Amino acid sequence: MFRKELKVLDCTIRDGGLMNKWQFDKKLVKDVYQACVAAGVDYMEIGYISSEDQFSRDEFGPWKFCAEKDVREVVGENKTNTKLSVMADIGRIKYEDIRPKKESVIDMFRVACYDYQIDKAIDMAHHVMDKGYEATINLMAVSTVAERKLDEVLKDVSKSRVKIFYLVDSFGSMYSEDIQHLMNKYQKALPGVTIGFHGHNNLQLAFANTIECIIQGANMLDATMLGIGRGAGNCTLELLLSFLKNPKYKLRPVLSAIETHLRPLQKQIDWGYFMPYVVGGTMNEHPRAALKWMDSERKDEYVAFFDQVLESRQVLE
Amino acid sequence: MFRKELKVLDCTIRDGGLMNKWQFDKKLVKDVYQACVAAGVDYMEIGYISSEDQFSRDEFGPWKFCAEKDVREVVGENKTNTKLSVMADIGRIKYEDIRPKKESVIDMFRVACYDYQIDKAIDMAHHVMDKGYEATINLMAVSTVAERKLDEVLKDVSKSRVKIFYLVDSFGSMYSEDIQHLMNKYQKALPGVTIGFHGHNNLQLAFANTIECIIQGANMLDATMLGIGRGAGNCTLELLLSFLKNPKYKLRPVLSAIETHLRPLQKQIDWGYFMPYVVGGTMNEHPRAALKWMDSERKDEYVAFFDQVLESRQVLE
Repeated sequence: MFRKELKVLDCTIRDGGLMNKWQFDKKLVKDVYQACVAAGVDYMEIGYISSEDQFSRDEFGPWKFCAEKDVREVVGENKTNTKLSVMADIGRIKYEDIRPKKESVIDMFRVACYDYQIDKAIDMAHHVMDKGYEATINLMAVSTVAERKLDEVLKDVSKSRVKIFYLVDSFGSMYSEDIQHLMNKYQKALPGVTIGFHGHNNLQLAFANTIECIIQGANMLDATMLGIGRGAGNCTLELLLSFLKNPKYKLRPVLSAIETHLRPLQKQIDWGYFMPYVVGGTMNEHPRAALKWMDSERKDEYVAFFDQVLESRQVLE
Repeated sequence: MFRKELKVLDCTIRDGGLMNKWQFDKKLVKDVYQACVAAGVDYMEIGYISSEDQFSRDEFGPWKFCAEKDVREVVGENKTNTKLSVMADIGRIKYEDIRPKKESVIDMFRVACYDYQIDKAIDMAHHVMDKGYEATINLMAVSTVAERKLDEVLKDVSKSRVKIFYLVDSFGSMYSEDIQHLMNKYQKALPGVTIGFHGHNNLQLAFANTIECIIQGANMLDATMLGIGRGAGNCTLELLLSFLKNPKYKLRPVLSAIETHLRPLQKQIDWGYFMPYVVGGTMNEHPRAALKWMDSERKDEYVAFFDQVLESRQVLE
């Protein structure tokens, strides 16, 4: 698939960091950055941006904060074709802690929000746009949002100045028919807005859903090296670049970073295809229960986890 | 997706055995069989059927041969709703070694062939049908068959008595557009014939492609527990059963077999998502080079493998 508008965003460090509290060593981050540049990746998301009084530096690594100094230590002045992005959670970064674009190597803020936070997300997106950055809104957990509420969210976004809006499969629970339905809905509600996609891989569909989004018209695509990311992980960058036919994309630098860093890391951290994540995805559940299970002594007890999820649902009914 | 004609075939033992020469212990095979029965799986493929003079029993386990005695030791008289199948490779089983259906618990033969063997495959299918079995033809490696030759194959099959024909993604190299094209072609050429699908997971698309085949009209679907199979493995049974909405299918027995047998086995055998298989899939290569690489000391050297594949192609050009 070649379409010149298509942009690829690598979020290896940002989403991968959810599995190790962003405790990556600087060599790894630097090599991932250089691999992105060499591979022709359009954006690299280097972490979350958070105010320093919100989280402890003892607990979290530098990519939870993305202080300008730390980012520059990796990317220098970033005189490359790969732009840099950070993700901002509502309430975790104070406006006064965001410097004007001209003082930063960061190019784009991605504002992650739930449906009930959309007004705050639009406000933050406008704020960073006014400071000179590109901005996206990434609406999380849409697989649990009622259609009427989603329509309201989309209406609010359509009235904003935000020009990039993300379809996010937070729970890794979407099939191709869900993608088709939502892509259609997003595009109808948001003419002139670029639609992005960020998928999770609980059902081994993150890459397939990314392809389906491309077919349906999405032009901004998230991926991570070896799929590292929360729980089951994400669409893998290596598969996505292989699929896209734009000659600027190169597979080899990504394979090199995987060989040197991601594959060794995968032997220590359990992201990927594990039954608790499958059960969560197929039941459209937040991954927190599966993550907790995978972090316990019982991580290989799949039937017990399945029974627990079923039971928690029956209590609700 | 609910469609009453849809049948699921588990080939955990048959395809999985390609990774360990069918050296499964009997307890594992018995538990997989019982899980298939409890999960409502329509067919279980218990192995390859081969004549005893073709392979050594010292090297290969019982599921390379599927002697009636060994099969019965696992399934008894198989008074269940799960039918049993075996796969036959052209030239590996002598007709005189195939007993009449009334003397066997096996219900179906699946004849695997390359395009240039189609006449032999049809002959064998007719032979086993005449002996009382159901029969399928599984045309392998179609991603490398020229369109004109494929048309000839389909014409031959259309003139035969064979009623089940498989689309097989042997190299795990197909995208949804390939599936759509081939499903359309197969169905047009073979009216009244059930189309099956067997996918490999090199590009993490085996499950997605299976769904696409269902949408396009395929009614016989292969899968294996935890995706065990040659190289990158297959569509996973647990994902497929979760997707299908037929109430007869149950996930829990499959999770149980995975917990007890497949997950422990996965710690010893490297099937699944590994870069050499990805490189092979994306380049539409037979998995033999990747399998050999994964079996060597260099299995974690991804860039070197990538370079080797590229080089072998340039020599060809």
